[in-house]
Amino acid sequence: MIVEGLTMSLPNVPGVPLYVQIREALREEIEDGQFVPGQQIPPEEELASHYGVSRMTLRRAITDLIDEGFIYRRHGVGTFISHLQVNRDHTRLTDFLEGAKASGLEARVEVLKKEVVPANHQVAKALALDEGVEVLHITTLRIVNDQPVTLHNSYVPRALLGLLSEDKLAVSSPWLLLENRGMKIKDALERLEARGADEEQAAILAMEQDDPILYKERIVFAEDGMPVEFEVCYNRGDKYSCSIILRR
Amino acid sequence: MIVEGLTMSLPNVPGVPLYVQIREALREEIEDGQFVPGQQIPPEEELASHYGVSRMTLRRAITDLIDEGFIYRRHGVGTFISHLQVNRDHTRLTDFLEGAKASGLEARVEVLKKEVVPANHQVAKALALDEGVEVLHITTLRIVNDQPVTLHNSYVPRALLGLLSEDKLAVSSPWLLLENRGMKIKDALERLEARGADEEQAAILAMEQDDPILYKERIVFAEDGMPVEFEVCYNRGDKYSCSIILRR
Repeated sequence: MIVEGLTMSLPNVPGVPLYVQIREALREEIEDGQFVPGQQIPPEEELASHYGVSRMTLRRAITDLIDEGFIYRRHGVGTFISHLQVNRDHTRLTDFLEGAKASGLEARVEVLKKEVVPANHQVAKALALDEGVEVLHITTLRIVNDQPVTLHNSYVPRALLGLLSEDKLAVSSPWLLLENRGMKIKDALERLEARGADEEQAAILAMEQDDPILYKERIVFAEDGMPVEFEVCYNRGDKYSCSIILRR
Repeated sequence: MIVEGLTMSLPNVPGVPLYVQIREALREEIEDGQFVPGQQIPPEEELASHYGVSRMTLRRAITDLIDEGFIYRRHGVGTFISHLQVNRDHTRLTDFLEGAKASGLEARVEVLKKEVVPANHQVAKALALDEGVEVLHITTLRIVNDQPVTLHNSYVPRALLGLLSEDKLAVSSPWLLLENRGMKIKDALERLEARGADEEQAAILAMEQDDPILYKERIVFAEDGMPVEFEVCYNRGDKYSCSIILRR
């Protein structure tokens, strides 16, 4: 535990650069849970004097941990311990709760809204419907380890509602429910962007307005090429990343 | 052209809701080049009185265009015309300039730095090297239609430098040059995050600090599983998005 004013001497392993020793000491303190996600770490001068090293050496250790995503810097505020990152594999189409479970995360979905609405321009275009045609709109909040991570919107053509089980809509992706009813799901077209959170998104996701959001929209297609679901979601930038394998 | 104080009457096509007519009229003005990317559009009251409709109707048209990414709102500042989006297909591994050319974009690459440096922790881990081993580090700025879009860092193990053509390093991805020399490139593992721009990134990419950045890191693997290149890049959130096809 880092105690203010107390200088800690490192074992000083020969052959291992000082900044690497400090970096690993800091990493250990984080991994040991001495610091919790979102917590601010002491200022550089303080850490440097705590470890008895120059500020330059300390900064090099810090920079490595920032590069790795272990800690992050907020302009004009300080340096903080990163939140647990939800890293989703986007190489294949998978269901959120299934995926989270496989990664050993404690995840749940909260339904915020479920209503039949006329499709707006964006939704109609994605689902190849006429504007104003009725669609089911489900808004959910995805919560991982008790922290809100994703504000998720799903739109399904009303014509398909007969195939969806009402009580399972809260926990499973609509496309997965359609698949369970025998529909062949082929693939999904996804687009990712970085955006700033607007007021409503920030409030729901417990972040500050304009904080980074990983925006994702996705159209899911059945084997015959028919779009069966359109998703629009806002992921907390500091808690969510996605991975893809790109084949040459 | 929207002239302040002048009310324009819409043709009022029967059967087409008023807000759709306004949305399409606005879209036409944008597509006709009456507004340029980054330009602020007049405030809602002014547009509403210009088109002779209620503010609610006007807002509905605006919301649709925001959803589509045609225009965007900056909290407390106003509503602006979006910049041209560079949308990259991330389903397959492709070269930036090749891809931009295929999309009909005017793109170029500017080399900011090219030097041999000791691998830091993050780079060493990605390239499966020991920390401190020398790697080639190339920093480039990718410019599309004369606007900076991506700050790109590429790291290549020094052992592979003999295979790279020095003069082509500025314009082609190192992995593409290795492929041209007969090396089989298998795939790449990519991770995407939304972040805020730091001071240096903001200055190079001509954006404000903390503006959204689509952060991307990528390890490129040869057929035998050896990592041959590590990329770290910062893409302007308002100009760059990426698309993926996810198969079920």
